[in-house]
Parts: sequence; C-alpha cells; structure tokens
Amino acid sequence: METIFTTERVRPLLVQVREFVQNELIPLEDGFSHNNLSAIIPILDQKREQVKAAGLWGLHLSNEEGGHGLTLCEFGQISEALAHAPFFGHYVFGCQAPDIGNTELLHKFASEELKERYLKPLMAGEIRSCFSMTEPDFAGSNPTRMATLAVREGDDYVINGRKWFTSSADGAAFAVVMAVTNPDAAPHLRASMIIVPTDTPGFKIERNIPVFGEAGEGWFSHAEVTYTDCRVPVSNVIAGEGLGFRLAQERLGPGRVHHCMRWIGNAEKAFDLMCKRAASREIEDGVMLGEKQFIQDFISESRAEIDACRLYVLNTAHMIDTVGVSNVRDAVSAIKFYVANAFLRVLDRAIQVHGALGVTDDTVLSAMYRHERGARIWDGADEVHKQNLASSILKKYGLDIKQKAKELRQFRQMMAAESSL
Amino acid sequence: METIFTTERVRPLLVQVREFVQNELIPLEDGFSHNNLSAIIPILDQKREQVKAAGLWGLHLSNEEGGHGLTLCEFGQISEALAHAPFFGHYVFGCQAPDIGNTELLHKFASEELKERYLKPLMAGEIRSCFSMTEPDFAGSNPTRMATLAVREGDDYVINGRKWFTSSADGAAFAVVMAVTNPDAAPHLRASMIIVPTDTPGFKIERNIPVFGEAGEGWFSHAEVTYTDCRVPVSNVIAGEGLGFRLAQERLGPGRVHHCMRWIGNAEKAFDLMCKRAASREIEDGVMLGEKQFIQDFISESRAEIDACRLYVLNTAHMIDTVGVSNVRDAVSAIKFYVANAFLRVLDRAIQVHGALGVTDDTVLSAMYRHERGARIWDGADEVHKQNLASSILKKYGLDIKQKAKELRQFRQMMAAESSL
Amino acid sequence: METIFTTERVRPLLVQVREFVQNELIPLEDGFSHNNLSAIIPILDQKREQVKAAGLWGLHLSNEEGGHGLTLCEFGQISEALAHAPFFGHYVFGCQAPDIGNTELLHKFASEELKERYLKPLMAGEIRSCFSMTEPDFAGSNPTRMATLAVREGDDYVINGRKWFTSSADGAAFAVVMAVTNPDAAPHLRASMIIVPTDTPGFKIERNIPVFGEAGEGWFSHAEVTYTDCRVPVSNVIAGEGLGFRLAQERLGPGRVHHCMRWIGNAEKAFDLMCKRAASREIEDGVMLGEKQFIQDFISESRAEIDACRLYVLNTAHMIDTVGVSNVRDAVSAIKFYVANAFLRVLDRAIQVHGALGVTDDTVLSAMYRHERGARIWDGADEVHKQNLASSILKKYGLDIKQKAKELRQFRQMMAAESSL
Amino acid sequence: METIFTTERVRPLLVQVREFVQNELIPLEDGFSHNNLSAIIPILDQKREQVKAAGLWGLHLSNEEGGHGLTLCEFGQISEALAHAPFFGHYVFGCQAPDIGNTELLHKFASEELKERYLKPLMAGEIRSCFSMTEPDFAGSNPTRMATLAVREGDDYVINGRKWFTSSADGAAFAVVMAVTNPDAAPHLRASMIIVPTDTPGFKIERNIPVFGEAGEGWFSHAEVTYTDCRVPVSNVIAGEGLGFRLAQERLGPGRVHHCMRWIGNAEKAFDLMCKRAASREIEDGVMLGEKQFIQDFISESRAEIDACRLYVLNTAHMIDTVGVSNVRDAVSAIKFYVANAFLRVLDRAIQVHGALGVTDDTVLSAMYRHERGARIWDGADEVHKQNLASSILKKYGLDIKQKAKELRQFRQMMAAESSL
Repeated sequence: METIFTTERVRPLLVQVREFVQNELIPLEDGFSHNNLSAIIPILDQKREQVKAAGLWGLHLSNEEGGHGLTLCEFGQISEALAHAPFFGHYVFGCQAPDIGNTELLHKFASEELKERYLKPLMAGEIRSCFSMTEPDFAGSNPTRMATLAVREGDDYVINGRKWFTSSADGAAFAVVMAVTNPDAAPHLRASMIIVPTDTPGFKIERNIPVFGEAGEGWFSHAEVTYTDCRVPVSNVIAGEGLGFRLAQERLGPGRVHHCMRWIGNAEKAFDLMCKRAASREIEDGVMLGEKQFIQDFISESRAEIDACRLYVLNTAHMIDTVGVSNVRDAVSAIKFYVANAFLRVLDRAIQVHGALGVTDDTVLSAMYRHERGARIWDGADEVHKQNLASSILKKYGLDIKQKAKELRQFRQMMAAESSL
Repeated sequence: METIFTTERVRPLLVQVREFVQNELIPLEDGFSHNNLSAIIPILDQKREQVKAAGLWGLHLSNEEGGHGLTLCEFGQISEALAHAPFFGHYVFGCQAPDIGNTELLHKFASEELKERYLKPLMAGEIRSCFSMTEPDFAGSNPTRMATLAVREGDDYVINGRKWFTSSADGAAFAVVMAVTNPDAAPHLRASMIIVPTDTPGFKIERNIPVFGEAGEGWFSHAEVTYTDCRVPVSNVIAGEGLGFRLAQERLGPGRVHHCMRWIGNAEKAFDLMCKRAASREIEDGVMLGEKQFIQDFISESRAEIDACRLYVLNTAHMIDTVGVSNVRDAVSAIKFYVANAFLRVLDRAIQVHGALGVTDDTVLSAMYRHERGARIWDGADEVHKQNLASSILKKYGLDIKQKAKELRQFRQMMAAESSL
Repeated sequence: METIFTTERVRPLLVQVREFVQNELIPLEDGFSHNNLSAIIPILDQKREQVKAAGLWGLHLSNEEGGHGLTLCEFGQISEALAHAPFFGHYVFGCQAPDIGNTELLHKFASEELKERYLKPLMAGEIRSCFSMTEPDFAGSNPTRMATLAVREGDDYVINGRKWFTSSADGAAFAVVMAVTNPDAAPHLRASMIIVPTDTPGFKIERNIPVFGEAGEGWFSHAEVTYTDCRVPVSNVIAGEGLGFRLAQERLGPGRVHHCMRWIGNAEKAFDLMCKRAASREIEDGVMLGEKQFIQDFISESRAEIDACRLYVLNTAHMIDTVGVSNVRDAVSAIKFYVANAFLRVLDRAIQVHGALGVTDDTVLSAMYRHERGARIWDGADEVHKQNLASSILKKYGLDIKQKAKELRQFRQMMAAESSL
Repeated sequence: METIFTTERVRPLLVQVREFVQNELIPLEDGFSHNNLSAIIPILDQKREQVKAAGLWGLHLSNEEGGHGLTLCEFGQISEALAHAPFFGHYVFGCQAPDIGNTELLHKFASEELKERYLKPLMAGEIRSCFSMTEPDFAGSNPTRMATLAVREGDDYVINGRKWFTSSADGAAFAVVMAVTNPDAAPHLRASMIIVPTDTPGFKIERNIPVFGEAGEGWFSHAEVTYTDCRVPVSNVIAGEGLGFRLAQERLGPGRVHHCMRWIGNAEKAFDLMCKRAASREIEDGVMLGEKQFIQDFISESRAEIDACRLYVLNTAHMIDTVGVSNVRDAVSAIKFYVANAFLRVLDRAIQVHGALGVTDDTVLSAMYRHERGARIWDGADEVHKQNLASSILKKYGLDIKQKAKELRQFRQMMAAESSL
C-alpha cells in the first residue's frame, strides 16, 4: 500500500532503487548459503560501482555532500527498499550501519579537519568505520556506567578499556570510541566520543564474537576490542569534551528510524518469501500450503503488522523532520520496540512456513534471524524503552518516576556509604 | 502525537469537539453506573441541543446536507475525539451507528422521495433508524446465505423473516432490511435493501437481546425482530432490486473506518483511565501503581498499539478518499481485525490496572468491554477478514484460493445432488 | 484424558457427580437467559434436596463432619466435575464459595461454641455466609493495609469500616470480617478475623456492586458493606487476636486449588460448547465451522492448555496433601495466575466461535466471562503473584528482593518523616 | 517441584545422573564457544567411559539389554536431567537421538540377525546410526508422499532417492531408510524401513546442511543424502515390507516423549541461566536485573510453563506405559506442539535477559535456539498436530473432517483426471 509519505521527489528514486535491488541484488541470493556472509563482499563491491555509475550512491547524504538532500522520512522509504535485499542492499548503496551513523555524526559535529580526514573517504566508500560504545561488564542500556577511560596527557588522550559489539571493526579504518574523560562531572557529562584510527598502537581486536553460530569477518562481524594505552590527539574528540552522551542521544533518533525502516524492509522480504512458499508448496496432491488457514493467519497478521509499523515509523520520521527529535522522544522509543518485535514475529512465521527449509541457510531467513534477534536488545532493550516511555507518559499524569528513582539512588549510595564505614 | 493527516480544515473543529467532550460529556461519567446505559439518554438529548447551537451537529454530513464536507480521513479524527466519551459522544453529535451508516446509504443511493421522507428527519436527529441484516440461523459473515424473503405482490413487497442484532430497533422509525427478492439469481444478486417503517403491521421486536448481562433499551439495544407478511411499497427498495449485496459492500468500507476510529478513541479513553489510575493509586506506602514495571509494560504497549493503529486507519481513509475504496480493500479488511484486537487488548489492560474496580460498572471500562467485545465478530469476524486478506494477497502470487473454493462448492453440490437421488 | 490422580475412592463419586450434573443441572441451561442468574435459585434449592438424598451433599467435608474425607486433590476433581454446570453445580452440592472457604476456616480454627452456632447450619446449607476483607480504598493485594478497626470495649469489639466485594453478603447470616485489632503490632499481626452476624446493628449492605452489567442479588452478588459501631462479643474472634493475616494465608492455599479446579471445569464447559458449535454450525453449504483451521487452532490450543493446567493444579493439591502448603507456596502462586489466564483464553475462544451468539446471554459463556474476568484480579492479581513467585525463586539464587524492598520502605518512611518536619 | 511420577526406582538414579551432569558435564561449558559443537566430541567420548564405569550407560534400555528396565515415564525424568547439559548429556549417557529411536525400533521389530549386527554395537556406543525419512521435495508432515524407491531385484533392494535432514549421517555406520517398496498398495502400505550401511556403494552424503549458520559435522550435523542404485539384501527390511508407515507411527509416540522431556530439561537449563543472570547482573549501582518486574514476569511465566509441561508429558508417558500409545494419540499430538512452543518461549526470554551476551555463542542459549527452533517443525509441524488433534476431537462431536478431506481428495483426483483428458 502506498502511503501519504511518498513525495514527488522520492517516488522516482524509489523506482530506480527497487529496480536495482530486484535485478542486481536479489539474484545473488540464488544458491548462496548464508552461513558465510562475508564470502559475497567482493561481488557486492562490484555492484557498488554500478550504483555509483547510476548516481544512486549515498542517498542519505545532504546536497552539499553530493547526496539528494532527502528528508529522514524520504530516506526511510529508500532504506526499506534496500532492505528487500537483506545484508546486500545498504552495503551496496553505501549507507550501511555503522558507517551511516558515523557519517551523520561527523557531518554534524566533527571539526573540518576530522571531516576532511575521516568523513570524506567514509562517504566515498573508500574506508569503513566502527562505533565502540558497549562494554561487556556493564549493561549497555545505561550509557552513564562505563569503565573505558581517556586520560589527558599533554595534547593526547591515552585510552584504556574493553569494548564489545564494536560492529564491523574488522577492516575498519577508524573507531569512534566512547570513553570517560571527566570522571568527576555529573554522570551525563563524563564521557566523550573520540576518533581512534585502528592502526593506533594498543588498539586490538581480541576476536570477532561468534553470534548465533557465526563469528563473521570484515563488515559482517562484531568485535571485542581492547584499548591499551591508545594515544590519540585531543583534537580527535568529536564536538567537545563531555559531550559523548549528548552525541549518543543525537545519533539515536535518526538511528532508530534507520533501524526500523531496515527491519520493515526485511520484514517485507520475509513476507514475500512466505507468500511465495505458500503459493507454490504442495502439501497434498493439488493442495497448496497457502490454502491452509494457519498459513493465511500468518500472512494476514504479518501484512497488517508491517503496514501499521511502516506508517508509525514514517510519521515519526516526518515529525523529526518537521518539529525536531526532542519533541517526539516518546515515539522514537515506541517505534524501536514495537517494530523490532513485529519484525521478529513476521520472520518467525516465514521460517515456520518454510518448514525444514526455513531453519537452513539455503534461504536468507535464518541469517536474518541470527543477525537481527538482537534488534530487541541493542540500542536499548525492549524493557528499557518501555520503562522510559511509560515514565514519560506518567509524568504528564503527575507521577515523576525518574525523580523517585533518583531519590532512591541517593538513598542507596547513602546506605552503601554507611555500610562501608 | 499529532499526525500528518490533521488538515487545516479539521484542526479547529477538533479543538471545539474535544472541548465539548471534555467539558460537557466526560463530567456525566461521574457517579454514573454503566449497568443501565439508557438512563442517560434524556440528558444526552439536552446536550444535543447545545451541539446544534454550536454548529457542530452532523459533522459527517456533506456541505449540501448542511455538514462541513469533511473527508472520511478528516471525519475519522472527529470520530476519535467523540469516542473519548464512550457511548455519549457520537450520539450527542448525531453521528451514531447505525444511523450514520443509513444516512450515508440513503444519501448515495435512495430515491429523492425516500430521502425526503426518511433521510431528512434522520439527519436532523428527529427519528432513529436500524439496519436489519443478520439472521440467527446463518453465519453473518456470509451475506449470500439468507432466509428472509421479500415476495413481490403487485406494487408491494411482502416480507417474511427473522433477523437479530438489529441494533437500536427499539424506538427506531424505520429499518433497512436485507431480504431475498430474486432467489434464482446468482448468489450476489439475490438480495435487496428495503425500507420498512417500524409501524408496518407484521414488524415485531421479539426481544432486546441480552448482551453480556444487559438487554438495554432504545438506542442502547440489539433487537431480535420478526417480519411477518410485512407489506411495503416496491418503491421502498434502495437503489434497485438485487443490489443489496453491493450496497452492503459500499456501506462496509467507510463503516469500518468509522468503527476503527471509534475504537481508537475508546482505546484512548481506556488508556487515559489506566494512566490516571497508575499515577494515583497507592499500593504500598509511598509507592504508586505506575512505578511497577508490569503496569509500565501495559502502558507502553498500549501507547504504541494505539498510535500505530490510528495511522493505519487514517492512511486507509486517506486512500479511500483519494483512490477509492475498491483499490484498498485489503487495507479495509486488515484494519478491521487489527484495530479491534488492539483495542480490546488495551481495554483489558486498563481493566486489570483498575483491579476490582475494573470489573464493576463504576467506570466505563466494563461497559466498553461488554458492548465492544463483539468488535472481533460483527462486520466480519477476525477469521473471515484474515482469510479474505490472505486470499487476496496470495492471488498475486498465482494461487487463486477463491476459484478453488468455488470448484469445491460445485463438487459438494454435485455430491449432494447425487446422494439425494 | 484420565490422570494419575484419580484414586479408587474418588472414581465412583466422580461417576455419580457427573451423571447428576449431566442429567439434572445442564438441562436447566436450556432457554435460561444468564443475565439474571438469581432467578434460578429456587430451582437449585430443589435440586439440593436430590443431592442430599443421593448422599452427595458436602463432598468437601471431612468424615467426622459427615463428608467423605476426600483429600484436596480428590475433591479438586469433584469440583471440576461440578463446574461443568457453571454457577449451578457448586451451589447445588453445597460447596459454593465463599461458604466452602468459611467452612474450612471455622472447622480448623473456630471455638466449639462458634462451630455449633455458625458452622453446623452452614454445612447443612441452612444458612449462607460471606467473607469481608477487601476495602475499596486499599489495594486488595496487600492485606496489611486496612482501615477497618475493631476496638475492644469490655467483652465486645466495636467495628467500624467499609468493605467491598463481600461476595454473597446479600442474604447471608453472618460475615467473617477482617479488621485491625492491634494497630501497633507488626504489620502482619495487626488484624483479626471476627464473625459478625448480619443482623448486628450497624451492619449495612450499601449496594450490590454492579459487575459487568449485573448487580445480582442473593448468592449471586458482591456487596459493598459498611460496619458502623457494630458490636460483637470478643469470643467471635476466630483462632485469636492478631491471627487474621495468618488465617488468610491458611485459607488461600486450598482456596486457590478450589478456584483453579472450578476454572478448569468451567473451561471444559466452554470447550464443550465450542466443539458442539464447531461441529454443528454450517457456514457455507455443506461446510461446518470446525473444518476451518482457525477454529481447529482454538480447539487444539484449548485442549492442551486445559489438560496441562489440570495436571499442574492436581499435582499441587497432591503436594499440599502430602507435604503441606508451606512447602509448595511457589506452586500455589503459579497455578493461580497460570490457570486463570488459560481459562479466560479458552473462554474467549469459545465466545469467538459462537459469533454473535457468543456475546449474548443465550449461552452461559458471556455470564462466565462477566463473573470470572476477575479471576486475574482477586486473591492476588496476576502481577502480584508473579512478583512474589519470582522473588521467591531469585532468593535461592542469592538475590533477596523482599529484603531490599523492606529497606526501601524504611527509607521512604524516613524521608516522609523528614519532609513532614 | 517434585512430581507424583517420581518412583522409588528412579529416585536414586536421578540423584546419580544429576550429580554426574553437574560435576562432569556442566563445567565443560566454561569458556566453550558453542559455534563449533563438534569440537567437544573427543572430551564427551572420555566422559562416556566414566558413565559406563558408573553403571549409568544406556538408561533407556530394557533389563535384558543390560539397562534398568525403566518405564517411559521414568526414563523421561532421566532424560530431563541429562538435558540440563544441552548437547552433552544424552550423548555421554548413550541415549542420544537418533540412535535412541533406532535402538527402540530395532529392539522391537528387527530380526535377530539385524539385531546382532546393528543393534548390539549401537547399544554399546561402538557405532552411530541415522534415520533417513524426509525428502526436500515433499512436505515432511505427510509421510505417504515419498519419491525414494526401493525396487526388488532378486534378493536385493535397489534404492534410489534423495533425503535430507538425515541427522548425524556424517560418521554413522548405517542408515534406516524409508523407501517405497509397494507403489501400488494403499498409501499407508507403500513404504518400508530398510537398513543401509553407509559404506554401501551409492550412499553419498551430499553435504551437511548449514542450519542457522552451522553445518556441523559428525553427530552434530544434518545431512542431505543421495541413494544411487544402493543395493542391500532384502533381509535388511525391518519388520516386513509395507510396514514403514506403521513403524514410523510406533517410533513417534515414545519419540515425542523423548523430545519433550529433553526440551523440558533444556528449558530448565535456560531458566537456570536466566535466574543466575537476573540475580547477578547489576544494571544500576546496587540494582540487580532481577529486581525489575519485566524480568520477574519472564521468570514467573517460565516457571509455570515448564512445570505444567513436565506434568503434561509425564502423565502422557504414564498413560503410554499403562494403557498404550494408541489410547493417548491426542495427548501425544498435544504435548508435541505445546511443549515445543513453551520451551522456545522460555529460551527466548533467557536470551533477552542476557542482553548482548545472549546472542553470542559464549552461552549455550543461542546454540540451543539454533538447534531447536526446528522443534516446532520436525516430527510434524505445530499446524499439522493441531489440525490432527482438532479433527480427532471433533469426530467425537459427529464431524468427521478426515472423511470429508478424503472425499475431497477423490474429487480432486477426478478433476485432475478429467482435465488431463
């Protein structure tokens, strides 16, 4: 169903992108076993040249960066179209995570020098990057608890710490690292984001973490990284010292729309495979799977869920575009958990409809599951978003849960202080 | 969250309507026990005068009918606002079911004579009407199976049959009756819609059906009606003989949007009560219900579901307005079951949050449940819509389920014929 | 499916009970409109005589009380069989709530004098009783918060307070009232259970609370009751002063098994009606509702849920019988929310399968819903049981949540004290 | 919670088994990355010797086979205990699938010669076996549709066909192959089970199928196998020609109990990890994950689901032991889908509670998911079991769905025949 959000500007681009995805990328799935995703990177790199030749590279970029200046809401629709070729689409069009997020971040907040050195080749697809925030020893949903330290020595920071789920670190040219620079400041002003080139002595990829049976490599990987006396110039800080948490917030709004629209495109992919299977798999002589109401239930529920999610995300993106992210924080929280869950339900149904084939790597379904089950965890687990959303809602009803939680933390600290006497 | 669908035309109307609902209707809930809804009708009738005085009567009507000529999408937003006062809002503003549906039907399809006689006083709120389609002996979801007959005798139809769930028949001035006029035609061309004044000899309300413990009366009732040799002029047929099924289809598209937007407004009402309770109910000394994550879960899931549903319905209404209902049949099916289920989940959570109070008639919640549990049943049960939606989707994938079902029916008739030899 | 729990002693009783229910009680449903349950009491009272004549009265009673000395596990199976005739079975066999709970309580804990005066006629079905614990102003799930006071004056208590959901107070001979007798004791030792004859001056039924559209009367009602200077002798206290909370706990273990087994029997009733409808309702020529997989899904899920629930409850009852309720508190919590939810799901499916008929009072389904939606609320809401169960489990893993909550309460009291200075 | 099913005979065995699992197997999980399961086989083979030394080998075997002659219900409890060490337990104790199923099959139905040659070394753990039934081109849930042919030539069968999901074929000594021997017989009498040694010319493992990112090897694998002119003696048929389908049925009853009890043990494992994490993971200073009600909800729901499932399966096993599998087919269908779904829900919650760690292979959780998502598919998908169960139930209500389906098949064949004229 076309939505009200399809502008005249984006409509022809959508046609071009869908055509490219359909003709150039989806055929790559044939016979490809998705248990070793990185095997396909060389072919995807060739496709990138075709995309550039067609003028479709970097559709997320602003006009001055050589893009089309699409709004978040418009690019969201492009992103959905790319996600019809899961794993392939965004990479080939140069707007894959985590690079797209780093691009936006550097574009908005980095110094000219950093832009010249890091942003330019990143936008051109000449290098890749990674984002190093979460630590194994601390719950990722609380960005104010962090052990990685960047201690200032002269004009340098000396960084020590351990990060994990630094996605795509393997082969990246630089990392954006979140580290505590001001340990004595208020919690939300302690950390900074600092660029660390991956050839900096002391930067070490300990391992690509095996995730659901695949450690992966290159872009398709999530590294555990240690920083041991990593020395970088102070000018590598993005925006300024102590602003790490604020930058993280800035990154998250559009980032969640990106994730959500990719999931919606992925969900459409799963839906398409589910319907193809339902229409073509004979289960008894002359009876197709799709004639069974169990399957019809899967299909109808999925259709409704996907369409409702799309409108929810696009309206949220539209509001970000028009009234600013700070006015729609509730919606940004809500779409994150709502879409992630809907997507995983659709995916699960598609797997079920494929029977034994569904659990193999012969279709893209199980790979999607393996790589996206985390959708309900990263960028804030479902539970964290729901708690935040409800707290925000109830505040309007006169119940300030965060204030009470704060008082409680103070009490706990007081108790801890007493008991340590 | 404001949506993209709020036009400049509807925005000031929304403000007025919300104000009226808030100031005039919601206070009526105080101390009102919802186990006898009809007790409040006299008061609502007074409020109607205020609405008329404020120029807000009949917001669903076209300009030439004295309305504001709102699109379906715009009126949907009004309808949601009215539904913040469940049971009261639509009635007071003169756009309550089933009259709104009959108004639309007569406006589009009735002869000038019928309009003059029935539509005009209906629009003015001087009379009420009912719609008599479902029969106790046949599954309502299959409108081609029907036992009520209208036999032509001279210039009259003589109608015999039994209907039920003829909502608001008690006190109505006329019924729109679905009856078989052409039993030998193709199934979809057998029935007609005929106006039967309720003072016609042979029209009898057998009972107001007790629904979830309340038989109700007047507008708040669902009658079982018998038609015994009811004689009405042939000119009482709407649009023409044999068009009953097509009219039913016409009625359903906008009708479903109306239902869905009312449910969304009702859901917002339940949500509001849930949050008020969560913010104000102390469960331990100094601890409010809303501090509990179980409750936060209810609130957050509900917020996301309602907002996604609203956008889904409004986009569907917008498509009906712009490309016509026949191009969005899938969406019309999808919103029906999707929104009904979401609404009932929200309502159930609100009841749970209220504890013992939630099952009483001291709040509007249990009355909403009693009167709206049928949302998943009437106008096509969930299961029927899902089957239709999936069939329509799979047809695009080359599997024609309806065609196979048709062959199967033919086989069954053949078998039945043989076995009866 | 027969279970391992069916002993030789209970098997013949089950046969007799099922036969009686089938032949004498289920026929009463025919043509009975369930929107006025109390209309049937006179007929049920006649059936009671037949039960007594057949030696089946009071199957919950011990041998010395004239019963059969069944274990809780054995009686549970009887209770399920009685619940195949919802609302009728338990009453006719003299083991209806709240009398069964009061019987158990008095039997175990009351003085000989109280037994003679209250228990004897109660067991004989000559009088009815009620249980008055919950207060509208306090969350029922926290029995230590209570405003009703019983002040000792000489040999009397003078009781003042407001209770609600005092089920079956209308027509009862006495109430067991929970009231604070020792306000300065530790929270769990403040309240007592006291017998108050309903003809005591100051005992007033303010109203039978309308619940889901039915205020009811007599046994089928839930009263709001005020106690104004109600004076009863101190000897009316059960077991002893300050033991109210402990008695409540004692009452709850078997009480939950009773509830659960009744719900399972009710669920079987709903299941039976669902299957009958599925097998007999034609939805197209020659096609029965039960041929649709949507309906098959409802039936199969329900079958599995009911059977799993029964085994869970009976095993819990068996453990209560053999190792004592204090050793299976976790299971007692778990069955409460698990069975209540499963039952309500089965019931909802049965309603859905009945279509429009399902929401009427022409079947017992909607009455069951109206009277049992509270199953997830009373005797501890789902959320309370889940919190308690998880806390108990996590304590074995070294996390003492209750202790932390206690510290937190102290902190809050401290803060409150400070802020009031 | 101990259940009523724990006999005096099995109680001491359970103690021994649990101790071994706890002390010898669970420590192997430490630091083991579950993305390459076969790496641990050499260590597990050492543990097997300890098991044999302790007299705990082959606890599923009858007394005459050197086992303990446990009932199915008793062994089910052992199986659950073994599954606390997922992947390790059953293998180390010599009762892993598919060998346990083949053992039962050969024990009951094979000739003495086949027993001597294949069963004996299989029971001793000297060889492994596989079971070759499902074909990629046919829905596995319909065992009467099959393309693999075994054509008799003299005293040999010559077998041709393609199978997949022939689990553990890699390294197996022989396969039990389902093949059509009597193509003209009634559908259920066409196929036979035949032993094919894997060194038979023409037996070829085409690949170990990558499943959720892991192709595996050895015991941990699912092969796609081709049979090309595989020649085996006619005496390799088990039980007799045409009995393949009946043997498959025989295999399935106990097989489903085995699966279910393994899943329940696996679910307990996931539950245990979930609780450990909840009790030890600090999410804010001084606040543990388990203090959050979202997590408490997960824990409580899981506790109830697992305990209800266990009782349901054990009661079913008990009925198989006492009244025979043919009298409890409905329950055997029901536990299959009911337990598989409950297990996967528990597992999903455990993953969620672990956050990012949960999707890695650093815990056993994601490996369990990858290897057991198929639980809802193999041995009959959920949908097939539900359809069968509902059909069986509704037959008692007078609706014979299978008969109608049969008539429909005949019609379709008739139509197909006509259209091919």
